Amino acid sequence: MAWRFALRIDPVASDDPRESFDDTLRIIDPLAPALPFGELSAQRGDGIFESLGVVDGHPQEVGPHLRRLAHSAELCELPAPHLAQWRAAVERVAAEAGEGENVMKLLLSRGVEGEGSPTAWITLADAPDNARARTEGVRIVTLDRGYALDVPGRAPWLLLGAKTLSYATNMAAIREAKRRGADDAVFVTSDGFVLEAPTASVVLRVGDRFVTPAPSAGILHGTTQLSLFAHLEQRGFATAYDTVAVDDLAGADAVWLLSSVRLAAPVSAVDGHAIPVDRALTDELNAYLLSPRD
Amino acid sequence: MAWRFALRIDPVASDDPRESFDDTLRIIDPLAPALPFGELSAQRGDGIFESLGVVDGHPQEVGPHLRRLAHSAELCELPAPHLAQWRAAVERVAAEAGEGENVMKLLLSRGVEGEGSPTAWITLADAPDNARARTEGVRIVTLDRGYALDVPGRAPWLLLGAKTLSYATNMAAIREAKRRGADDAVFVTSDGFVLEAPTASVVLRVGDRFVTPAPSAGILHGTTQLSLFAHLEQRGFATAYDTVAVDDLAGADAVWLLSSVRLAAPVSAVDGHAIPVDRALTDELNAYLLSPRD
Repeated sequence: MAWRFALRIDPVASDDPRESFDDTLRIIDPLAPALPFGELSAQRGDGIFESLGVVDGHPQEVGPHLRRLAHSAELCELPAPHLAQWRAAVERVAAEAGEGENVMKLLLSRGVEGEGSPTAWITLADAPDNARARTEGVRIVTLDRGYALDVPGRAPWLLLGAKTLSYATNMAAIREAKRRGADDAVFVTSDGFVLEAPTASVVLRVGDRFVTPAPSAGILHGTTQLSLFAHLEQRGFATAYDTVAVDDLAGADAVWLLSSVRLAAPVSAVDGHAIPVDRALTDELNAYLLSPRD
Repeated sequence: MAWRFALRIDPVASDDPRESFDDTLRIIDPLAPALPFGELSAQRGDGIFESLGVVDGHPQEVGPHLRRLAHSAELCELPAPHLAQWRAAVERVAAEAGEGENVMKLLLSRGVEGEGSPTAWITLADAPDNARARTEGVRIVTLDRGYALDVPGRAPWLLLGAKTLSYATNMAAIREAKRRGADDAVFVTSDGFVLEAPTASVVLRVGDRFVTPAPSAGILHGTTQLSLFAHLEQRGFATAYDTVAVDDLAGADAVWLLSSVRLAAPVSAVDGHAIPVDRALTDELNAYLLSPRD
């Protein structure tokens, strides 16, 4: 990980009227000690985050990412983020990015245990080289997420639609995929429906229709998927949120994993069975996703 | 949180032959910055932990806690902890505890992203005052954990038997319990079986038999429950690991939540229905649990 920059944010109340947030932002050495051991992010994974792509200095989809951060905060009963403060911080960090692709992470934790105030920070690092995933594609395995499709709606304490810092299972699923000789995983419900990848959304093409699993299934509403759907609709394609059966993956005309930094990674195999990769369309989609988007 | 002490551990390989670990242990101000932003504990909840009770300077059940730490490390594919090193660190921290009750947390994370070596530390803090929970008891609500009883056995990537730092859901369940006017939660499977509390084990008394849900259900094997069962067996009671239906809670002669610091908290109500508290037996169990145990 090539860390480039870090910024600490002293969060202000969501209705704070100030116009400049400069004195609430502090530059921090990304490798220096910053968080005390009592931090609830480190002790309990008790916080939320967003990962943004930054392309040639332009932070992508800042508005949708900040709206999702606010949504996660609400689900986790964290103080509502002051969106103008976060936007100012994102712009401050993006100014350090320069040419090429970077990854910016926004993090908001419940703070140090016993102190009662949240901790917030942003990191900037070089993006990994995703060229191969974007062209040759990724082989996926489907892994049971353990719950049935109707669970998220009736068990909000499971935080299934929040982008929390409790990602140990997501990381374990990626390790399991690699152990099976694949590149990535796709979580499915115990009753056989597609959910999401550990760090990406799933989009299928069936004819001229593009489908992604509905966020009501306790998954994240992908910012990159949302942006791509708008682009596809402009090009005259139909798009839909729907329930997607596991068997639909192997039967689709094409499948992609979509995420903010890797962007559109075509799926080349599902559980060991090759599926077609539409290289020309994928290149076109990634050209769009690499263009400045707000 | 009254933090008392913190110790950083530089983990050595599990087969390291050295006899003294003094130069691998560093005292750290528990309130000072210690972890860089790139720490995977803080970014991903990617690590494991143990909480030990320390009573009048004696750390309780160190062996069982270290064995469970090693078990969690294996499930999470973290480097195996050097148990003698951890024991030396626990003893170093316990020496700072003094009279009364303290809570010691052992933490092992995957380290700073990109560096490839784990981070390890121990904190010591005053224990909260648990007198009321131990005598008057705790009111619990049952909350769906979202998965069926047979899931943990077939989906190890869910890490359901590991004590990971990804505890956001556990914390959310306790908030949900308090919102419903209760003190704590008990997770149950979507098919109606009792699992565990977010930070405690569940033990039921039915006649002269004490029962706890089997750890094969993707729950932690409670160190305090294990110690209590040994004590109960010595006193001539029968103990068992079993599947426990949710309805068994309200029908039991008594129910306790067992954990390393709060110890035996009798359950006084389940989902708003009062259940009997055996005050005399509970006092006796807590007297045992407060005695020095190894």
